[in-house]
Amino acid sequence: MTNIWVKNFAKRTERMQSSTIRELLKISNLPGVVSFAGGLPSPDVFPVEEFKHACQVVLETQASHALQYGTTEGYLPLREMIAERSRRYGINVRADNVMITNGSQQALDLIGKLFIDAGDNVAVESPTYLGAIQAWKVYGANFVTVETDENGMIPESLEAQMHHKPKLLYLLPNFHNPLGTTIPKERRQRIIEICHKYQVPIIEDDPYGQLRYEGEHIPPAVKLDADLRGNDTENYQGNVIYLSTFSKTLVPGLRLAWVIAPKEIILKLVQAKQGSDLHTSTFNQYVVQEVCKDNFLDRHIPIIRNVYRERRDLMMELIDELFPDEVKYVRPQGGLFLWLTTPPQLNTADLRPIAVEHKVAYVPGGPFHANGGGDNTMRMNFSNASEEDLREGMKRLSLVLKSALV
Amino acid sequence: MTNIWVKNFAKRTERMQSSTIRELLKISNLPGVVSFAGGLPSPDVFPVEEFKHACQVVLETQASHALQYGTTEGYLPLREMIAERSRRYGINVRADNVMITNGSQQALDLIGKLFIDAGDNVAVESPTYLGAIQAWKVYGANFVTVETDENGMIPESLEAQMHHKPKLLYLLPNFHNPLGTTIPKERRQRIIEICHKYQVPIIEDDPYGQLRYEGEHIPPAVKLDADLRGNDTENYQGNVIYLSTFSKTLVPGLRLAWVIAPKEIILKLVQAKQGSDLHTSTFNQYVVQEVCKDNFLDRHIPIIRNVYRERRDLMMELIDELFPDEVKYVRPQGGLFLWLTTPPQLNTADLRPIAVEHKVAYVPGGPFHANGGGDNTMRMNFSNASEEDLREGMKRLSLVLKSALV
Repeated sequence: MTNIWVKNFAKRTERMQSSTIRELLKISNLPGVVSFAGGLPSPDVFPVEEFKHACQVVLETQASHALQYGTTEGYLPLREMIAERSRRYGINVRADNVMITNGSQQALDLIGKLFIDAGDNVAVESPTYLGAIQAWKVYGANFVTVETDENGMIPESLEAQMHHKPKLLYLLPNFHNPLGTTIPKERRQRIIEICHKYQVPIIEDDPYGQLRYEGEHIPPAVKLDADLRGNDTENYQGNVIYLSTFSKTLVPGLRLAWVIAPKEIILKLVQAKQGSDLHTSTFNQYVVQEVCKDNFLDRHIPIIRNVYRERRDLMMELIDELFPDEVKYVRPQGGLFLWLTTPPQLNTADLRPIAVEHKVAYVPGGPFHANGGGDNTMRMNFSNASEEDLREGMKRLSLVLKSALV
Repeated sequence: MTNIWVKNFAKRTERMQSSTIRELLKISNLPGVVSFAGGLPSPDVFPVEEFKHACQVVLETQASHALQYGTTEGYLPLREMIAERSRRYGINVRADNVMITNGSQQALDLIGKLFIDAGDNVAVESPTYLGAIQAWKVYGANFVTVETDENGMIPESLEAQMHHKPKLLYLLPNFHNPLGTTIPKERRQRIIEICHKYQVPIIEDDPYGQLRYEGEHIPPAVKLDADLRGNDTENYQGNVIYLSTFSKTLVPGLRLAWVIAPKEIILKLVQAKQGSDLHTSTFNQYVVQEVCKDNFLDRHIPIIRNVYRERRDLMMELIDELFPDEVKYVRPQGGLFLWLTTPPQLNTADLRPIAVEHKVAYVPGGPFHANGGGDNTMRMNFSNASEEDLREGMKRLSLVLKSALV
């Protein structure tokens, strides 16, 4: 390539990297390979008929608005619906606390734009969501990693890291990606207290919260923070920015997610989003609002839960039945993922090409660790595999693991 | 607001600002006000029936892919279609030279992310597109302004600025926003030669190129650069990144645009976009590909041209007939805008609220000037005004101008 471009790259491009997972997915999507590598919702539960109907209704009745430029913060009836649904869970917010984004990934990018200067520390779980690492590294974030166990982030480890003065804490409380863990209520409260004591704001990322297959709903950090600080007023002023999405409860291909934050932060996020892409597709917002009105999600989410619960149960059953005893997992109460830990001598990145040769794919756990480690871990997705694929793929993987552990 | 957020803002937030235009649009959209302030395509030419049909076809036949996560670079058949259409205009590229973005605004943001470090100089026309200023200021760009006349950017002024060593030149060659001007072929070649001499890459932004109402098509800089450098091969290696969009030829509400660049730059843009929002709506890409296949745009664009040409002609006719002689304009050969220059004593920003009181709105020209100036200029949009609105609005504005110029 002519040097004219390369010599003009900004310094931050050195910190840019392709997502290891997305690169692996390309390799894994070979014919005959059963893939547990993706993080994909299942098309079996896409509400296609409802989308067909909604597209027609929107184009019949509101085409001139739905196909036109729209506001940066998003379509008001959709934001009102999101605020109303959030209030059910005790998140006391109004439409002006809500901004629509192109998937939660855009929310992570805009938060990076707003808060991270080169060299800033950000506290994350180890392991954590790869997309957050990728989004924030570009702005020059250093990551301070907090230890986790079967109940997610360990508060004592968080407090021990506070001398690094992190600018943000990134928290995945429900059915963690990749861990599958859920943080119990008391631990959430303890984490919030620590963040309040050290004045560290929290980014709570909750894409899977609605996909619980057992046990009881635990209030999100955004709600517990308001409770603990006693400011559960109509003008949300909390220390938590809360992210969620329609990608897992409806479909991912429309790229619709949202941020909940204090009004003043929403105004700043709107400024950042104006420069980033002006606004999210008007048409998609109208269509999703049309699909979801009259509480469609209340009828649809139980269907998703039933399908994914069965797949999770079958995956766990097959591990118990087929896998070597030294391979451990934590039972996920919801979400899309199951996290495996093998004995330390096994390197799951090295094992991956062998697994693909045996026509089964997973994601090695290493890249989810912001500061290294986790070479003997792997992430398994159960939501997008049929019973047949689960039975066949897990059999193949058990043989690969057994050979490796001889 | 609690200080916990504000004290953690990144330094770059000081450079963030709301678009003056978007703020003004809110004020201008009052009942009874005829607005020439927006930059909106007209819903009169939205191909609604085609969209209805395409949504049904896509959801009938490809729902499981169209509603699922997709690739960051974009839907291959759509990228192939864009490459094929580009080759018609002598832009010798393939699908791997094309990345889909959420409107051209996202392309501007990603280019900023890739090329601009704080303190870098970027050369822009004076005036230039506000969205580019907004996108790049956040990354710390300083703007070096190049003078313009009725034929757009003046090459001598560009060369005179080259001692500032700009990292990029941002160029709007066709039906400039806000100027309405078009750069003649020889001047384009001269600009390319200067950029080649000083090794400055060009960002060519061409949202309106298809909307020509008179005169002949002029090859884009991306084509002329390849000609001059003699590297019109299948592996595009030029010094120009070219941006265009479906917003003006189809609809803006789906937020679909594209970047054309050397393959290696596309790979870097894909990395940047992965961290920014993973990918653009899969569904929208499938729908637009379905609408546009079989050369729909070849039949549709002439309809848009006819409608907008009539509106442009009427606006010019009304200026000639009604406006004070001291108010000058350049006849735009295409696009959406007409640029007015009033005598220097008139400040169009001060006049704006008076105009709104008289139920007519426009955008003052000042904010389009990256380094100030242009207080006696204004941008008028003709594409989204009916004949009735044009006649009434221009009458009102003529009275406001006459009173101000007494």
